[in-house]
Amino acid sequence: MGPGPSDVNPRILNAMARPTLGHLDPLFIELMDQTKQLLQYAFKTENALTMPISAPGSAGMEACFVNLVEPGDKVLVCINGVFGNRMVENVERCGGEALTVNNIWGEQTDLNAVEDTLKANPDIKVLAFVHAETSTGVRNDAKALCELARKYDCLSIVDAVTSLGGIELDVDGWGIDAIYSGSQKCLSCVPGISPVSFSDKAVSVIQNRKTKVQSWFLDMNLIVGYWGQGAKRAYHHTAPVNSMYAMYEALLILKEEGLENAWQRHALSHEKLAHGLSELGLELTVDSAYRLPQLNVVKIPDGVDDAAVRKQLLEDFNLEIGAGLGDHAGKVWRIGLMGYACKPRNIDHCLAALRTVLK
Amino acid sequence: MGPGPSDVNPRILNAMARPTLGHLDPLFIELMDQTKQLLQYAFKTENALTMPISAPGSAGMEACFVNLVEPGDKVLVCINGVFGNRMVENVERCGGEALTVNNIWGEQTDLNAVEDTLKANPDIKVLAFVHAETSTGVRNDAKALCELARKYDCLSIVDAVTSLGGIELDVDGWGIDAIYSGSQKCLSCVPGISPVSFSDKAVSVIQNRKTKVQSWFLDMNLIVGYWGQGAKRAYHHTAPVNSMYAMYEALLILKEEGLENAWQRHALSHEKLAHGLSELGLELTVDSAYRLPQLNVVKIPDGVDDAAVRKQLLEDFNLEIGAGLGDHAGKVWRIGLMGYACKPRNIDHCLAALRTVLK
Repeated sequence: MGPGPSDVNPRILNAMARPTLGHLDPLFIELMDQTKQLLQYAFKTENALTMPISAPGSAGMEACFVNLVEPGDKVLVCINGVFGNRMVENVERCGGEALTVNNIWGEQTDLNAVEDTLKANPDIKVLAFVHAETSTGVRNDAKALCELARKYDCLSIVDAVTSLGGIELDVDGWGIDAIYSGSQKCLSCVPGISPVSFSDKAVSVIQNRKTKVQSWFLDMNLIVGYWGQGAKRAYHHTAPVNSMYAMYEALLILKEEGLENAWQRHALSHEKLAHGLSELGLELTVDSAYRLPQLNVVKIPDGVDDAAVRKQLLEDFNLEIGAGLGDHAGKVWRIGLMGYACKPRNIDHCLAALRTVLK
Repeated sequence: MGPGPSDVNPRILNAMARPTLGHLDPLFIELMDQTKQLLQYAFKTENALTMPISAPGSAGMEACFVNLVEPGDKVLVCINGVFGNRMVENVERCGGEALTVNNIWGEQTDLNAVEDTLKANPDIKVLAFVHAETSTGVRNDAKALCELARKYDCLSIVDAVTSLGGIELDVDGWGIDAIYSGSQKCLSCVPGISPVSFSDKAVSVIQNRKTKVQSWFLDMNLIVGYWGQGAKRAYHHTAPVNSMYAMYEALLILKEEGLENAWQRHALSHEKLAHGLSELGLELTVDSAYRLPQLNVVKIPDGVDDAAVRKQLLEDFNLEIGAGLGDHAGKVWRIGLMGYACKPRNIDHCLAALRTVLK
């Protein structure tokens, strides 16, 4: 019950152990097509350029930035946790200029500050932000931020690593231009694959670049030849075939449950956990208005030894919870309720273990 | 029996289906250390910076180039197949200048031409070449090419995607500075992971770059914090934990057999296949002096329908062989004898099937 990887559904582990097909085998091509459709369902999009990148979420982030940002481009990055900072790194390594709106860790990105910056800098090309900040447990207002991006004629890049499958996310409804996610959070799939999606507007920007994409491996102009429509696929790289079996199974499980049902399960489970934590006298750090149900950040009570508690939980209760990151180290714990691990039995176990350890 | 992915050993598929550990779990860190040691054995190196990259071989290639090539750097690339061309793409996307020595597909890289170019361009920083060209079945003389690189004070980047575990490869003995390989050729592991190794000289070049590595995901300065020595690991990206189980198992299988024994098995199997093909009146296109035992390129006899034969082999005999790539399309077949698939039973089956289909 840490911040991920979450427990993998055994159905997914079984899927993964099936014999490896060739990456150009007609049967595998069919699985790629079905995976794409399931991913469109999960993202709520009809974007044709929707597919899993053959590498972890960090590479999915990089795929969005290297394809959309050219040298000299201005990108506004909203920072209120670790992963916003990583976006700035990406912009700079593309030769872009990163402007930032910084908010205190644990609070939402301030929409007014974003609008002011967009207004003052009409040449900003991209607005980038993290939907669900895994480092702080904060949900940023993705819908409103994408509205601002459109209002000021920017593209939007959205980090949905921890949000996909856990809270409302509507790529087409909100007008998101580029989005990446991870496999190992609310999809409860094995780590190593990063679903991405690009709007037609983003695709047009990628096709009309002045310079070549700096990464050959992540160049969407080339990847689309392999993941594109139709029976004819051009070899680009050898896909991680077995990991793709796992991703297909994870998305199928999500569809079987129903996207909205999965969101509701995370919300209700969070309420149950929050109620129990409150009974133990523990405090959640994030305001309930923009708290992530799938990542619960708990203030460590005064006088309690962070590392000792986590060690005892792991050794005596076989229970992992996350430490604080960066400025939050030693001050908070992060309790994940993600995907397959988001179930009443786990919540009961976690609360009982904390009750014993904190006695 | 195509050019890869090769059949995956069932031991590896079983390993992959084990429960997912956290990427910072002490047990997983231990597995990372052991994987690194096994990889040092397979590469014949004591390089400290030896590890599997969390993405396919194409990303391993990119990791070598983006870390060692800075804008303006001159790189000499030896081209005698598809993957040499891909190296040129990588150099150019790093802002480097690619000089090339081109040889006819199916022939070795000409050492004299390489030496002449190195002599004429004393500012060349890197010599890059493919050890085993999967597109043509040719083995380039890696030992001699690395000697030339050292003689002219260059770094060497070696593509060992298809060579590792199949033919002699000696990273320290030959003085290779940067090398990448794949999981799905002679290691018979699932695709999606790319082992790499960097010499101390290469590490020093990476640490003293003037510019930041253009890829955050592949920046070895950051990755080393996660894969480095000691118990303390800095989070960089979430490793594909289950694929790493698979890689560990694949390397363990190689060590159990013994590296030299694996090379010999590939050599003897090739002889058996070559003998059988000759009896069928089929001709291998590559000179036996530099032919890859693990990838046998066969001339399609006049009047034989390439696609029809491959289709019949697949449908009636459940046997996949590879088509020709690029200029070789329609002219050759590529028969893989890689790792777990390199065994007498497969050779007998392949020869019997070809005998029937070509009758």
